[in-house]
Amino acid sequence: MQVAKVRGTVVSTQKEPTLQGVKFLLVQLVDQGGNLLSDYEVAADTVGAGVDEWVLISRGSGARHVINSEKRPIDAAVIAIIDTITVDGERLYVK
Amino acid sequence: MQVAKVRGTVVSTQKEPTLQGVKFLLVQLVDQGGNLLSDYEVAADTVGAGVDEWVLISRGSGARHVINSEKRPIDAAVIAIIDTITVDGERLYVK
Amino acid sequence: MQVAKVRGTVVSTQKEPTLQGVKFLLVQLVDQGGNLLSDYEVAADTVGAGVDEWVLISRGSGARHVINSEKRPIDAAVIAIIDTITVDGERLYVK
Amino acid sequence: MQVAKVRGTVVSTQKEPTLQGVKFLLVQLVDQGGNLLSDYEVAADTVGAGVDEWVLISRGSGARHVINSEKRPIDAAVIAIIDTITVDGERLYVK
Amino acid sequence: MQVAKVRGTVVSTQKEPTLQGVKFLLVQLVDQGGNLLSDYEVAADTVGAGVDEWVLISRGSGARHVINSEKRPIDAAVIAIIDTITVDGERLYVK
Repeated sequence: MQVAKVRGTVVSTQKEPTLQGVKFLLVQLVDQGGNLLSDYEVAADTVGAGVDEWVLISRGSGARHVINSEKRPIDAAVIAIIDTITVDGERLYVK
Repeated sequence: MQVAKVRGTVVSTQKEPTLQGVKFLLVQLVDQGGNLLSDYEVAADTVGAGVDEWVLISRGSGARHVINSEKRPIDAAVIAIIDTITVDGERLYVK
Repeated sequence: MQVAKVRGTVVSTQKEPTLQGVKFLLVQLVDQGGNLLSDYEVAADTVGAGVDEWVLISRGSGARHVINSEKRPIDAAVIAIIDTITVDGERLYVK
Repeated sequence: MQVAKVRGTVVSTQKEPTLQGVKFLLVQLVDQGGNLLSDYEVAADTVGAGVDEWVLISRGSGARHVINSEKRPIDAAVIAIIDTITVDGERLYVK
Repeated sequence: MQVAKVRGTVVSTQKEPTLQGVKFLLVQLVDQGGNLLSDYEVAADTVGAGVDEWVLISRGSGARHVINSEKRPIDAAVIAIIDTITVDGERLYVK
């Protein structure tokens, strides 16, 4: 999984029928020093993440193992809102 | 998922039998600032996207979860036409 | 999918038993301007592509959805020989 | 698989229900000369790896083949703690 | 698939139970001109490849289609030992 920061939302009305009701968040990836990378992902959200929160994203087929998503054509999902990240015994991030 | 802009089409007559009738769009990836990247994808389209529209693409096995595509040898699909993208409370894109 | 140009072949006798009879093509990826990239792929071919032809390749689990390949340990396949690529209304490639 | 060094942990309380009890390690990838890369992964751990140990990580759907993880939305897992790495007959790493 | 050269081995005793008896090779990727890249992969080997041999590796779920590996948490496998690579009618590699 990768660490990412929620930056915004993507809205669509004309889409695959199975995507009705799915919330798409634009999340920006974070490097291991805690800095924002230029890479982003548009991820389905089922855990209720909000803008500026740090989250874990899962990509590929793993994203379809979140609730009610087995049949959805998604390749990225928010799977957790991060509380703390600890590296070498030091806190890198606290919510 | 990634944000991409529809740029054109790819046509083939000699292909896997299960690909008959599938429309292939050439889409160019967009970075999180809204600029075109050099990366592209040839994606199957089932939502009816047109040239210059911004779309969401799903890659990997997720692409085969669009309608009637479970058995097709595809690894990318257009899953939604984007209406709006909002980043940090500002509109980055409006259709 | 990505656009690639067929450059050559890879031959092996000592291999997984399920790969008997599979033809492996060395294909070089093409960027969206039609130029050869340094990236290549060794792809299973079931559509009969020849050297110098431009093809569509599918990677990952999608590659195993070509004919008779469900049980083969492959991660890339040629799925179509390209006739034309059109970008912004202009022909980028004609076979 | 890739070689990685365990650097820390990621903790989350608000997450997908299937992730209860899963330990998430932050691991940093190691290049083939034994140096730390800037790339990291947050990987589920079921083998009991500790900080500073070198491990093998599996990414993608393979990560869900570790014990009790078939239904979890994960895309990376620690699958082994490394004892030795030998390259060209020389020991690159000994635990 | 990618072309790689076998460089060494990775040994582990504390690992997922399904990995007992699996041989892990450290293989270094080869570019299309035949030069070694800095990228490597730790790949399960079932075809009996030895150090310095050139092999084809399959990554992702394809790796689990080698013999007896369906349930193993691996994401890369050696699937063939290469005899010859021919590019533009010239031999790039002969075993």
